[in-house]
Amino acid sequence: MKRKRLEADPCPVARSLDAIGDWWSLMIIRDAFDGLSRFGEFQKSLGLAKNILAARLRTLTERGILAVEPGAEGGAYHHYVLTEKGRGLFLVMVALRQWGEATFYAPGEPHSTLRDTQTGDEVRRLTLYSADGRALRAGDAVVRKV
Amino acid sequence: MKRKRLEADPCPVARSLDAIGDWWSLMIIRDAFDGLSRFGEFQKSLGLAKNILAARLRTLTERGILAVEPGAEGGAYHHYVLTEKGRGLFLVMVALRQWGEATFYAPGEPHSTLRDTQTGDEVRRLTLYSADGRALRAGDAVVRKV
Repeated sequence: MKRKRLEADPCPVARSLDAIGDWWSLMIIRDAFDGLSRFGEFQKSLGLAKNILAARLRTLTERGILAVEPGAEGGAYHHYVLTEKGRGLFLVMVALRQWGEATFYAPGEPHSTLRDTQTGDEVRRLTLYSADGRALRAGDAVVRKV
Repeated sequence: MKRKRLEADPCPVARSLDAIGDWWSLMIIRDAFDGLSRFGEFQKSLGLAKNILAARLRTLTERGILAVEPGAEGGAYHHYVLTEKGRGLFLVMVALRQWGEATFYAPGEPHSTLRDTQTGDEVRRLTLYSADGRALRAGDAVVRKV
């Protein structure tokens, strides 16, 4: 399928999705947040074919979400690390995680958890607030077009 | 590319992405949050080929994110509406929107905005909090595996 480019779309959701690209790209970004940085580490984690993984890493780098850094060994294995733009996806990852936790697990079924590094406690659920501090649900907010 | 299924993965992000499927699916979900519900409305908004759009709508319905409702006319045009599970993606959409707003617009460049329906004001930026109420950034939280 030929992909429609949405990089000039007036909707910020569209531009975000255009930059991320696809499902595998988000899995690579997830792994990068978990500290993975080498090609072989992503491959082992995701079970992706080398050519597919290489293409995704290249696209994420071209779009400024990942940056390539030389390895400590002098470049034999370089590292893919999140840029500032890439680290900005943190709350997208958290929102996907919390939806998954609430949706796809049987009661008592174990899953990985997101923990405050300082205390080890689980983080709070994300909540959207209005300018005057009320918690907002989907029906309480509306998109105003340009 | 054959897709690896992640529906039994221990990571909630993986299960979420598995259920959503891809980039176009998220655009359909975005439009559903904006009140679009008919096939022709999605097609006009997204510019997708009919067969591709039909396949995405079917998958989202099978996965319980959208539900099919008969049209008011007695079924000539049925509607695709978000289920409770689908509405649970609200904060994923908000997080994608806010990343896009912060990342892909030049200063002063207009973009659509998310507004509190009650006051018309823009919503606040999402923030992740620790159990004891500290705002957390990416480096302040870590995934604990099962």
